[in-house]
Amino acid sequence: MQIVDFYFDFSSTNSYFAAFFLPEMCARNDAVVNWIPLHLGALFRDTGFDVMAMTRRKARYLWRDHARQGQMAGLPFKRPSRFPIKTADALRGVLAAARLDNESRDSSLLIHATRAGAETNLVSRSAAAYSQAVMRAYWERDEDIADRGVLARVAASAGLDSAAFIRAIESSEVRAELTAITARAAERGVFGAPTFFIGDDMFWGKDLIGFAERWMRRTV
Amino acid sequence: MQIVDFYFDFSSTNSYFAAFFLPEMCARNDAVVNWIPLHLGALFRDTGFDVMAMTRRKARYLWRDHARQGQMAGLPFKRPSRFPIKTADALRGVLAAARLDNESRDSSLLIHATRAGAETNLVSRSAAAYSQAVMRAYWERDEDIADRGVLARVAASAGLDSAAFIRAIESSEVRAELTAITARAAERGVFGAPTFFIGDDMFWGKDLIGFAERWMRRTV
Repeated sequence: MQIVDFYFDFSSTNSYFAAFFLPEMCARNDAVVNWIPLHLGALFRDTGFDVMAMTRRKARYLWRDHARQGQMAGLPFKRPSRFPIKTADALRGVLAAARLDNESRDSSLLIHATRAGAETNLVSRSAAAYSQAVMRAYWERDEDIADRGVLARVAASAGLDSAAFIRAIESSEVRAELTAITARAAERGVFGAPTFFIGDDMFWGKDLIGFAERWMRRTV
Repeated sequence: MQIVDFYFDFSSTNSYFAAFFLPEMCARNDAVVNWIPLHLGALFRDTGFDVMAMTRRKARYLWRDHARQGQMAGLPFKRPSRFPIKTADALRGVLAAARLDNESRDSSLLIHATRAGAETNLVSRSAAAYSQAVMRAYWERDEDIADRGVLARVAASAGLDSAAFIRAIESSEVRAELTAITARAAERGVFGAPTFFIGDDMFWGKDLIGFAERWMRRTV
């Protein structure tokens, strides 16, 4: 089973779509998603932002495109009132969710215990459920995902122990892990989100998922 | 038969790919391409450029992506040595090609004689053949498409009378037409290339063609 490293930030609209499209694509191709939180703010600080200084006409187009992407996919996308938003805690939550899976006795939560690849193993059912739940809270229900109370509730809705979850996102280990993951992403060439890898091949943007699927099948 | 307005510039890598992908998509959906040249330089001057000031890592990724897009599509894409390049004459050539079709006695060259829609009718076999031929000259054979001699040769390879072609691209009517088309594109909300329209719905980028195809089928 192939592992697809998926770098995303909750503040990225295209990451929201990719968080639903990519798992479906992987499921069709005997692959699984490795849910890797990427701190875009830190990435842009360290590597230089590809300024997408947007004219109004382009911004208008993009919101329109997001709306019809949601419509076609059956995702109730809604433009959030808080935008942009701080996501460091929400991103640490992905790491917390994977840790809680790893600590649990319930082996059904673990899709892969170990991995020979280059990146952290975050192929975990709770990391997936939590990540999609945060995306829905922010991009569908306009919730304040910078608020730890909101995150604790979302984590509980994804089946996690919310007290353990909060302890984990406040821990220095998890904080350091997010920093390290973001730094390694930059080393791999990541410059934005969503980005995903099929083997060593990097793909940027939700709109590349269809192409990446054909690419993946070609190499088989 | 549906007409898909396709705005492109020869200097745009993604327009090169779209110039081959979009006609295939249209053919599958009982639609035809309206080949509308867009003077990107003038558009950016007038509407403000969405600066894609690119970090090296992003530029590296994009060239890599272009290479594999070509590989998957069977298009011998090659990074040109002259980049960027002036394209005003080459773009006027699209208008010249459509005019020569309209003036010719050979009605098989004309797919539609008239059109009720908002934009110029450039649904012409010669405009299509010439546009694809210029794309191939620049993005596959590294030819200097800013040179009128090169353009005349390309026009001849697309079945056009090269003397009449050169007269047309030098005419003040064709010059004014390119300016007017680009200004009207801006009014329609176009901010880059490739851009295409399914009815009133605008799509930006070759990577949207797959989505646009599903969108088109949905509305049928």
